[in-house]
Amino acid sequence: MLYIVGLGLGDEKDITLRGLEAVKKCDKVFIEAYTSLLSFGISSDGLSTLEKLYGKPVTLADRETVEERADQILTAAAASDVAFLVVGDPFGATTHTDLVVRAKKLGIDVKVVHNASVMNAVGACGLQLYHYGETVSIPFFTETWRPDSFYEKIQKNRALGLHTLCLGKKQYEPPRYMSINTAIEQLLEVEHNRGESAYNEDTMCVGLARLGSEDQKIVSGTMRQLQSVDFGAPLHCLVIVGKTHPVEEEMLDFYRHSEENNHGTV
Amino acid sequence: MLYIVGLGLGDEKDITLRGLEAVKKCDKVFIEAYTSLLSFGISSDGLSTLEKLYGKPVTLADRETVEERADQILTAAAASDVAFLVVGDPFGATTHTDLVVRAKKLGIDVKVVHNASVMNAVGACGLQLYHYGETVSIPFFTETWRPDSFYEKIQKNRALGLHTLCLGKKQYEPPRYMSINTAIEQLLEVEHNRGESAYNEDTMCVGLARLGSEDQKIVSGTMRQLQSVDFGAPLHCLVIVGKTHPVEEEMLDFYRHSEENNHGTV
Repeated sequence: MLYIVGLGLGDEKDITLRGLEAVKKCDKVFIEAYTSLLSFGISSDGLSTLEKLYGKPVTLADRETVEERADQILTAAAASDVAFLVVGDPFGATTHTDLVVRAKKLGIDVKVVHNASVMNAVGACGLQLYHYGETVSIPFFTETWRPDSFYEKIQKNRALGLHTLCLGKKQYEPPRYMSINTAIEQLLEVEHNRGESAYNEDTMCVGLARLGSEDQKIVSGTMRQLQSVDFGAPLHCLVIVGKTHPVEEEMLDFYRHSEENNHGTV
Repeated sequence: MLYIVGLGLGDEKDITLRGLEAVKKCDKVFIEAYTSLLSFGISSDGLSTLEKLYGKPVTLADRETVEERADQILTAAAASDVAFLVVGDPFGATTHTDLVVRAKKLGIDVKVVHNASVMNAVGACGLQLYHYGETVSIPFFTETWRPDSFYEKIQKNRALGLHTLCLGKKQYEPPRYMSINTAIEQLLEVEHNRGESAYNEDTMCVGLARLGSEDQKIVSGTMRQLQSVDFGAPLHCLVIVGKTHPVEEEMLDFYRHSEENNHGTV
């Protein structure tokens, strides 16, 4: 049996009772490296907080393990109970869907333990989840590679009055995490080049950092305003605000940008 | 302090360790009635499974309490630690956003404990959350009231190749829960009347019942096929499939409609 267990967004206490029960009965426990390195302050030399809670060793599965050495996890799961731990919810990333497909093809039973992910916890900013369009992912631009396919998606969402959740595309080697400031910088560069007025410096947005953690930071303001906010450590995400309803506006007001929110920069 | 705690989708074991810790330190615990009546088999005469786990009484907050008697919850939260429990994630419904706004206006601190909701757990069917458009809610039709504003939203999502999550609109008095069969019946009636070919009987869909529970049921097939499937007890939701990618198709194949899936109805 393969248990794919969502750990939620904050720290080790965000696992569910059902998830903890599954982990405790498993013979082998793997954890996805990319986001867990951050969310749980896990370094390659120690997973001790989780291991203490679970009462057993946890093996860090780097990207190579998940996508290329999935066989190792699946072989173990064919013989005994194995848990694969994922920050957020198991179906936040295509990688994990692929693992489920491979397990099912091998006749291995799969049980999923759900948890919060950015895809629903972003509701914390007050914008209704019903009113989001397609989610976009923003890759790190390089000197020669500046793909802008997210631009048309944002444009379409905005034409429909919908909010757009912007996530940084995962970059594994070395792991890098898109900041809100970089995301806005790249968004404005693309608008400057395309010039189709999908959005501009005065477009209302919400920046969310470390969503679901004790020290989460949520600030609403224009792109220009958010560019000067120090959001601190990753993970970050950005919402481009569409048409708003009164209760949404009231929530955004609580998070409105001010000098007070703007720790450390300016 | 007001803790708004998501309970997740299955049963009492889907609370997180953080959520349970919050509930245990609260002086008063309220629970939202609408969905909890189902998910936790709670009847008006007993909340005993939860009360046993929490070690304290739980007060069932009917709709009147949440929207009209929110003052009672807020007055208690101004004086001591109060937990308000919500099935799924706290920001799945506008009602709860409204409670947060009212608390903040009164200067009451609010802490949210996130959990899985249908908005992210629907990823279980294999369709990537990134590729969903606006979510639609489908109300129960009556003889004289047959609103169809969901039609245009579905049409727009499909034109963009996006999947559409269809949820039944909450109906409180008496509580009723939209079945997948009724949703499809109403969808096809509206298509018949509008005739704009947003979808038809052969459009691929996925029906999901009791998502996140031990006995969840997921079946993919055309609208016509799913109409004859007995999905059993609520809650149900329906996804109208947009453009698919190979890994999405492989997952849908695992859930494909067959006579075997079709318990009891043919």
